[in-house]
Amino acid sequence: MTIKPPVDLDGLRALVASLPAGDEAAAAQALARDAVLTKPPGALGRLESLAVFLARWQGRARPGAESIRIAVFAGNHGIAAAGVSPYPASVTVQMVANFTAGGAAINALARTIGADLVVTPLDLDRPSADFRAAPALDEDEFMAAVAAGFAVVTPGLDLLCLGEMGIGNTSAAAATAAGLFGGAAIDWVGPGTGATGPVLEAKIRAVAEAAAFHRAATDDPLDLARRLGGRELAAMLGACIAARHARVPVVLDGYVTTAAVACLGLMREDGLAHAIAGHCSAEPAHRRLLDRLGLAPLLDLGMRLGEGSGAAVAAGIVRAAARTHNEMASFAEAGVDGKA
Amino acid sequence: MTIKPPVDLDGLRALVASLPAGDEAAAAQALARDAVLTKPPGALGRLESLAVFLARWQGRARPGAESIRIAVFAGNHGIAAAGVSPYPASVTVQMVANFTAGGAAINALARTIGADLVVTPLDLDRPSADFRAAPALDEDEFMAAVAAGFAVVTPGLDLLCLGEMGIGNTSAAAATAAGLFGGAAIDWVGPGTGATGPVLEAKIRAVAEAAAFHRAATDDPLDLARRLGGRELAAMLGACIAARHARVPVVLDGYVTTAAVACLGLMREDGLAHAIAGHCSAEPAHRRLLDRLGLAPLLDLGMRLGEGSGAAVAAGIVRAAARTHNEMASFAEAGVDGKA
Repeated sequence: MTIKPPVDLDGLRALVASLPAGDEAAAAQALARDAVLTKPPGALGRLESLAVFLARWQGRARPGAESIRIAVFAGNHGIAAAGVSPYPASVTVQMVANFTAGGAAINALARTIGADLVVTPLDLDRPSADFRAAPALDEDEFMAAVAAGFAVVTPGLDLLCLGEMGIGNTSAAAATAAGLFGGAAIDWVGPGTGATGPVLEAKIRAVAEAAAFHRAATDDPLDLARRLGGRELAAMLGACIAARHARVPVVLDGYVTTAAVACLGLMREDGLAHAIAGHCSAEPAHRRLLDRLGLAPLLDLGMRLGEGSGAAVAAGIVRAAARTHNEMASFAEAGVDGKA
Repeated sequence: MTIKPPVDLDGLRALVASLPAGDEAAAAQALARDAVLTKPPGALGRLESLAVFLARWQGRARPGAESIRIAVFAGNHGIAAAGVSPYPASVTVQMVANFTAGGAAINALARTIGADLVVTPLDLDRPSADFRAAPALDEDEFMAAVAAGFAVVTPGLDLLCLGEMGIGNTSAAAATAAGLFGGAAIDWVGPGTGATGPVLEAKIRAVAEAAAFHRAATDDPLDLARRLGGRELAAMLGACIAARHARVPVVLDGYVTTAAVACLGLMREDGLAHAIAGHCSAEPAHRRLLDRLGLAPLLDLGMRLGEGSGAAVAAGIVRAAARTHNEMASFAEAGVDGKA
């Protein structure tokens, strides 16, 4: 089923309030199967818990990770004009063209695992507002981006990887994290695509200003996400909510993706229970944010590209987990002796 | 080309002495290409260094990780009679049958990445000698197992994953590590398939006895490998040496695999330079052994199965590295602006 996007923030709140719980019966069946497979108990480590996770959130005793979609959302940011990135804002639309032509890292990674790549540019000619003194998006703009996220959750998916592209969006991520969790701006700001010196200083100042301004206005996590994020962050949040309703587990990518969905973890304790942290980015604040959300990353490869690249690499491991769970013989089937 | 196996230890020593160096010209070409691809410098993290690693050890500016072989060697161990494992020695031959039938974890993992799986049982009806008071293998037995390792390195491979099966072989790995590096037996012994209590105590005692006995006899790393390993360890060592000569990079699996090839790292400083540590096993001593050898594992997923399972999961990441390197567009090709 495709999930109908809500028309306003209250509708979105209602959909968060009604997020389905995991299917504990399916999880228990997967756990019981895991126990009889031809390996010492626990010997496949995280692969075993991933298989049970998939069963729980897909609602099937025999989970799968064959049909994988990588959804990449692109947006532009008013804050980019404040000199927070070493790259010009023109790169966002150019990279979307690169995605379309098949020449970006995420194209190669999607082909490697046979995943379906869907790229959604979001009003690239209309950057979000400079969030230092105004909300990044008004409610209509935010909900339109959320709806674009809902649109990528179509029937038949086993797994959804989320990713993004947007010059300036590690500033939006840092501002969102600082808005949601407080603390000093410098704790949430990192080099992103490679900011150093005056660019990095401008980024820290911008994030500090933005977080202070919007935290004074509200402490509502969803509203902070609207005020401090941007279109691609809103879309990833929408996709993450829609996926839960559609029983599609989600693989998060790096810092921007995690910041985009972080409000869900504050709105309800199990808000991100259907999500896997695909990797820990080299962006220093990502580890801090994952810790706050109680998410343990699958990979730690020093990646910091975005585009869903870390999620795509992780998805190959999630598939390996499902395959071993489904395809291995039991001790009885294989005629292998148990413990002496 | 297929590498001819040596007939005696001296011949093997000569092949270790003549291990080829990396192709620095190919590595430099790969590094230069990496610098122009459409991503911020370094943003793909370990994937970038893996691509350069492949170029260096394959001797090609455009490396590949399409043709992947997983070679699993199985052996039985005299030490198993000393009660060092919770599983009976009968499990080794039963698991080889499971591999042949396609029902083990490594079968599912090989299918997931489209790798070729070659399983080589090594005289399973003739366990290695109890190494507490005699060499595990005599020179002829050792060289026959080494030759079985050479045999899996056939033309056309891009990457070779090494793995093993053998009840009792984490004791052989621990004894080998203790023999090569010294230290207390307890530093090198772990639960393996799940040894606890008296079984774990027997394992620690056996390893301490064996290391003391053979360290008193020799300090030669290759001879210690013969005395303290076993057939599947010797075969993995042979495969690792043959692969270097054939310009096939190697992905190591867990503790047993790493222990099997550890002598190479002591025989020459660059002896394992063509090998990737696929993962860090949950077997506690694996991290210590990797540190001693200067190997940084790609994955840390709590796996401890053996069979090449961790190497196979890692191989998917190595392939992702080669694919991104080969398939991504450059800034110029894609018309993407560089830094402002």
